[in-house]
Amino acid sequence: MNETETTNTLLNHRSIRHFKDQPLPESVVLQLLNAAHHAASSMFLQQYSVISITDNAVKQQLADISGQPHAQHNGHLFIFVADQYRNYLIGREQHANIELLGETDRLLGCVYDATIAAQSLVVAAESLGLGTVYLGSILNEPRQVIDCLKLPHLTFPLFAVAVGYPNSQPEQKPRLPLQTVHFNNHYQLPTDFNSLLDHYDQDLAKYYESRTTNSRHETFRNLITHEIARSPKHRRDLFQVLQEQGFLTNQR
Amino acid sequence: MNETETTNTLLNHRSIRHFKDQPLPESVVLQLLNAAHHAASSMFLQQYSVISITDNAVKQQLADISGQPHAQHNGHLFIFVADQYRNYLIGREQHANIELLGETDRLLGCVYDATIAAQSLVVAAESLGLGTVYLGSILNEPRQVIDCLKLPHLTFPLFAVAVGYPNSQPEQKPRLPLQTVHFNNHYQLPTDFNSLLDHYDQDLAKYYESRTTNSRHETFRNLITHEIARSPKHRRDLFQVLQEQGFLTNQR
Repeated sequence: MNETETTNTLLNHRSIRHFKDQPLPESVVLQLLNAAHHAASSMFLQQYSVISITDNAVKQQLADISGQPHAQHNGHLFIFVADQYRNYLIGREQHANIELLGETDRLLGCVYDATIAAQSLVVAAESLGLGTVYLGSILNEPRQVIDCLKLPHLTFPLFAVAVGYPNSQPEQKPRLPLQTVHFNNHYQLPTDFNSLLDHYDQDLAKYYESRTTNSRHETFRNLITHEIARSPKHRRDLFQVLQEQGFLTNQR
Repeated sequence: MNETETTNTLLNHRSIRHFKDQPLPESVVLQLLNAAHHAASSMFLQQYSVISITDNAVKQQLADISGQPHAQHNGHLFIFVADQYRNYLIGREQHANIELLGETDRLLGCVYDATIAAQSLVVAAESLGLGTVYLGSILNEPRQVIDCLKLPHLTFPLFAVAVGYPNSQPEQKPRLPLQTVHFNNHYQLPTDFNSLLDHYDQDLAKYYESRTTNSRHETFRNLITHEIARSPKHRRDLFQVLQEQGFLTNQR
């Protein structure tokens, strides 16, 4: 089996939440954006945009919205946006049937494009020795984020990615056993799923207990159960906000 | 500026649609899956699964469904699945409030996780000299794909990725100018958007005219207008199928 620098980078991924107080050079920001922008996109429609938050006032607003105060000072903040507005402008000029942009597969296409680009940016950053973390918490208050970033119709803020010089090197979290995530030909959890999960719970508990910061007792079963129960109230109008922005408006 | 093998791989991406008749060794498949499985996931919930299509009968069925006959013989086919079923089983056992799995942000989390994993798999493959292509066409007939892959409640087939030994080396498609996709602090298309688009249309037309296979006259404006108009009829019940699978059922 061949290893490459890239496969090693991918296998060594861990999220970095604390960065040195050292901004990314403009050339590196550009390099990361270029790597992202050369990734695949759905039907080559390039249905995403990225917003860099360089203004401290905007950063502060987003940190307040997401309830992640440490995001304010940490790293370069990229916001990934589902974007059909740019293509809508083009289509309108050419008298296309704009209504079809409200189809469900249009939203999926945008989310694919934005996420593919984001993951290319993350992998590029990690290959350069930088740390990265996805921040889903901007969805806590989507309307406020939309206002703050002046997002037009047919755009939607999906998540943020923070990138910076790592100020910590956390242990890597063990993943679910591969045979519970990958199948051949049909969806089929292994017959020993529960006992595989027992082992995984033990591995994960060991990781959480031994890690140097935020050590606690935690299993995957507990994490899932806690997360299912927790579904944040403020996220419950996401669907409505997506519709306000023009997505998911054509349903049958 | 530092270049790495990885940034070069990312910048050189192009989709490969034709592969040699040479299967991926099992060890490489495993390596790609491992790279994918070590990527970030939303709240560490790992809400995705991957299905490898190794049975020719299943491959044939999917090729018929997607209307992409060449998919049948070409490369190793991975199907990426939004998956809350696995976590639902865990939550149910622990008496969590399962109803919340129908929230909109749960579906988004699944799509992020599946797409992040897929892009890591794609980048790993390309770093090994393999070719890759995303196939969104399995969404043409989602119910048939769900049947064919025996997908349970709370799962949904998002897209396929084919990986193989390249049998063609297409030219790279020029991307939209970066300043039309990346902004600082606020969403703001450049004031010279239209003239940037004129230039881009010329670049893209040049690419389409000069490429060695499937050469044609095409601009980005035409592509977008054509695509908006084309919204396939058979995709128009995607929303309903998502709900049948248990997604997007909690709307306010």
